[in-house]
Amino acid sequence: MSKPFLYTIVSPKLLDIYDVNNSVVVIIDVFRATSTIATALYNGAERIIPVDDVQKCIAIGNATPNSITAGERDGKVIEGLQHGNSPAEYPSSFIKGKTLVLTTTNGTKLLHMALKNGAAEVITGSFPNLSAVCDFLMKQNRNVFLGCSAWKDRFNLEDTLFAGAVIEKVKAHFTIHCDSSLMAEQMYQHHKNDMHSFARLTTHWHRLSKFGLEKDLEYCVTNDVANVLPIYKEGCLVVV
Amino acid sequence: MSKPFLYTIVSPKLLDIYDVNNSVVVIIDVFRATSTIATALYNGAERIIPVDDVQKCIAIGNATPNSITAGERDGKVIEGLQHGNSPAEYPSSFIKGKTLVLTTTNGTKLLHMALKNGAAEVITGSFPNLSAVCDFLMKQNRNVFLGCSAWKDRFNLEDTLFAGAVIEKVKAHFTIHCDSSLMAEQMYQHHKNDMHSFARLTTHWHRLSKFGLEKDLEYCVTNDVANVLPIYKEGCLVVV
Repeated sequence: MSKPFLYTIVSPKLLDIYDVNNSVVVIIDVFRATSTIATALYNGAERIIPVDDVQKCIAIGNATPNSITAGERDGKVIEGLQHGNSPAEYPSSFIKGKTLVLTTTNGTKLLHMALKNGAAEVITGSFPNLSAVCDFLMKQNRNVFLGCSAWKDRFNLEDTLFAGAVIEKVKAHFTIHCDSSLMAEQMYQHHKNDMHSFARLTTHWHRLSKFGLEKDLEYCVTNDVANVLPIYKEGCLVVV
Repeated sequence: MSKPFLYTIVSPKLLDIYDVNNSVVVIIDVFRATSTIATALYNGAERIIPVDDVQKCIAIGNATPNSITAGERDGKVIEGLQHGNSPAEYPSSFIKGKTLVLTTTNGTKLLHMALKNGAAEVITGSFPNLSAVCDFLMKQNRNVFLGCSAWKDRFNLEDTLFAGAVIEKVKAHFTIHCDSSLMAEQMYQHHKNDMHSFARLTTHWHRLSKFGLEKDLEYCVTNDVANVLPIYKEGCLVVV
């Protein structure tokens, strides 16, 4: 039996050139949406509602008991929302049992595109839940697309490195004829032992570290510290 | 004085998210259009007319004295055209003084997008003319965009490696805050001494080597063997 295919998509703008119908799409937004999603669910959030728009975030928050609205632009909490996009804001003592309504730009856009194009399953991936993602992918027997959220559609390194980390772990189970996957795997292999220093060279680190977020960013490139599988079911990311 | 910026664009689909107005755009299509362009001009072709469409290629060929029409799909000369897309087809004894009307898909599309978006200069780059490209870029004092033609809009490694080769040579002259440039440079540095073997791992090599094109592909990853600068002037690529 032939193995399913695995591809890496380096920008949301490139999603449409792949046939994701019936596949598993992994939404990757390492700095920091998908790291925060894994962490909030790991710490007991009941569910996360990803939305692409601030007004929608506020409206859903108002209509949902026991919910928190969250989102950032340029490292600051968006006016009208309650919390930011930092994994450190969601310890168990705060988030357990609650619904997090989270606005993200890059990641949510990719998620909705994947659903529209017929993906069978959409999950979110980040270094904090690397192993949970890989375990899931190896059991599905479906084609896999590792979807980097990028930054304003531009290639970014941190999402690519995470794709590489996944590929290193799962590649024996997939057919991989994809230059972006080969590149991602090699970049990860070259840097997996200096991730904290290499990540400092990325443009996104420069952008966010200005806001004193260095500890956050280090957390976001640490493996398996919030090892759950966020999966999209009926409008929410949940752990099943 | 601040240095001009340099960016690497890994797919034509991502060109529109950058402001290329007033800049230099380098069109890169290593396997094999821009390698063939450099070679034909190096061997004395008077000019190359890049077109995106077979019928247009035939019509321009018919209307142009001393011209040759050329283009391939899937490793074979396109019906109705005279020659293919291999640098080896254009020795000096054959091409000197002639006009080559060349249809390419990925590269020509990118070239026209760059012009439409206001690029000040459009040149073509490939390993055979690496030094000529770098020398030109360092003299312009303009922002530079290294535009990978990719394959059907998918990221490809050979164009990325060429971008990395350029960056390694010119980086002291530019401000580079661009993850794709950092990635391209690192990939090139890791593989510049095993280019012939590493290029064999790319998907495009697999596609083309089926047609017996291995010698061609090795040529296309060899530095400075056709070291001229093809520059776009009034509808043609010429050496000025």
